[in-house]
Amino acid sequence: MHVVVNAATSADGKLSSRRREQIAISGEADFERVDRLRADSDAVVVGAGTVLADDPHLTVKDADLRDQRVEDGEAANPVRVVVDSKARTPVDAEILDDAAETYVCVSEAAPVDRRMDLANRGAELVTAGDDRVDLLRAFAALQEAGLERLMVEGGGELIFSLFEDGLVDELRVFVGPKVIGGRDAPTLADGEGFVEDFPTLELESVERLDDGVLLTWQAGGR
Amino acid sequence: MHVVVNAATSADGKLSSRRREQIAISGEADFERVDRLRADSDAVVVGAGTVLADDPHLTVKDADLRDQRVEDGEAANPVRVVVDSKARTPVDAEILDDAAETYVCVSEAAPVDRRMDLANRGAELVTAGDDRVDLLRAFAALQEAGLERLMVEGGGELIFSLFEDGLVDELRVFVGPKVIGGRDAPTLADGEGFVEDFPTLELESVERLDDGVLLTWQAGGR
Ligand SMILES: NC(=O)c1ccc[n+]([C@@H]2O[C@H](COP(=O)([O-])OP(=O)(O)OC[C@H]3O[C@@H](n4cnc5c(N)ncnc54)[C@H](OP(=O)(O)O)[C@@H]3O)[C@@H](O)[C@H]2O)c1
Ligand SMILES: NC(=O)c1ccc[n+]([C@@H]2O[C@H](COP(=O)([O-])OP(=O)(O)OC[C@H]3O[C@@H](n4cnc5c(N)ncnc54)[C@H](OP(=O)(O)O)[C@@H]3O)[C@@H](O)[C@H]2O)c1
Repeated sequence: MHVVVNAATSADGKLSSRRREQIAISGEADFERVDRLRADSDAVVVGAGTVLADDPHLTVKDADLRDQRVEDGEAANPVRVVVDSKARTPVDAEILDDAAETYVCVSEAAPVDRRMDLANRGAELVTAGDDRVDLLRAFAALQEAGLERLMVEGGGELIFSLFEDGLVDELRVFVGPKVIGGRDAPTLADGEGFVEDFPTLELESVERLDDGVLLTWQAGGR
Repeated sequence: MHVVVNAATSADGKLSSRRREQIAISGEADFERVDRLRADSDAVVVGAGTVLADDPHLTVKDADLRDQRVEDGEAANPVRVVVDSKARTPVDAEILDDAAETYVCVSEAAPVDRRMDLANRGAELVTAGDDRVDLLRAFAALQEAGLERLMVEGGGELIFSLFEDGLVDELRVFVGPKVIGGRDAPTLADGEGFVEDFPTLELESVERLDDGVLLTWQAGGR
């Protein structure tokens, strides 16, 4: 399994404002890059916070890229995955439409009726962890289902946990020409935070893109 | 007046961990760059939070750079400035030693005995603002005192306020190969945060340095 975390941040490391409203950080060239990365992935993963805040669709936008996938014997779109301990994903969420398969990773704490609603909407349920999704077990289940190339699109709570569990292979960050600020605004890696044994990275490439810069880091260990 | 904000962040935009302990983010090359920038400045500015957390000295470390300043008819070290509404800077803080002149910008809310203690330690007091330091007025007073080239070394609360007041001309961020994480860890720009009219930047240069990258942004407006 290979896990790429991809996100866009402001120059001060924020994913969005304290209101958790989506903010245009990148531009057309980055948009196309992200679309290609999605097309090259078996699954696109987000946290429940991102689904609730942004209601993303997480499909490949470029029809040629989708056609290419189909030609290669794959589904037009990668599988969509939500990490959602309490099964809070709304049944009318975009990611539950028919454009792609959708997995919802829940914990034992998810109410049974919420799970049934999601299953009725066609979602594939993965149960791992007592109160919170156990990411190691959930990702093992995804791998067992044949999902090898994972792209994680956020948010900061999920990304932190993935680093905590040593599940990140690569981090790609587009840093855009804005200051968002805010001690309560979501950042690239939130959660509890590390206080020692910080995960180390290796800078693989630096590329100017749109009005910002794309930093590609390889993840080492802790 | 020309204001350069300079800071080092982790790959996820943090200035330090949630414990507010100083963390080695950059390396030798960045250290030398920061020292040169200090030597090229009339004053080095920090917030009271940084003084309380790190007790920095804020002097030029390289003796040749200090000698050059003296040759040029300047003091060996730039003036040190703390933005400190309540005059909380401890009298035994490193920045109050004899190595350089020190200004403490306080508000009307600073207790008189604290102000007297600081004045007794040789600090130059600038009073601006009722509860909090009014940065526009404080910086105008610094300019009147002949301080034209200002370097701000943090932290995130002060940097946010400077962007809010439109006082930043340039932002230089060394982004290092670590993940710090933490929704409560200080970031490059904290404060309330913007929710619209985000300050925009222009990416002037991108330079690999040590194991990270130095991003130089010109500040536009809001
Ligand atoms: N700029 C970008 O590239 C970008 C990308 C994505 C998102 N965003 C922004 O990021 C914000 C959302 O981010 P977020 O950090 O609030 O939410 P998030 O990371 O998308 O989701 C976090 C949620 O996932 C669930 N979860 C389950 N198991 C977890 C585990 N082991 N570790 C961590 N989380 C787990 C938790 O909720 P439960 O307990 O309910 O499961 C948690 O609250 C939004 O403002 C969005 O606009 C920006
Ligand atoms: N990596 C780096 O490059 C770097 C650089 C510097 C600092 N740091 C880290 O940053 C952390 C400290 O940052 P911080 O954000 O907590 O503190 P800070 O920005 O250094 O100082 C903030 C304080 O300044 C005072 N202040 C007065 N007037 C203000 C105004 N108009 N706007 C904003 N602040 C005003 C406030 O305290 P009063 O109300 O008491 O005045 C405020 O709490 C530490 O963990 C330190 O290690 C890292």
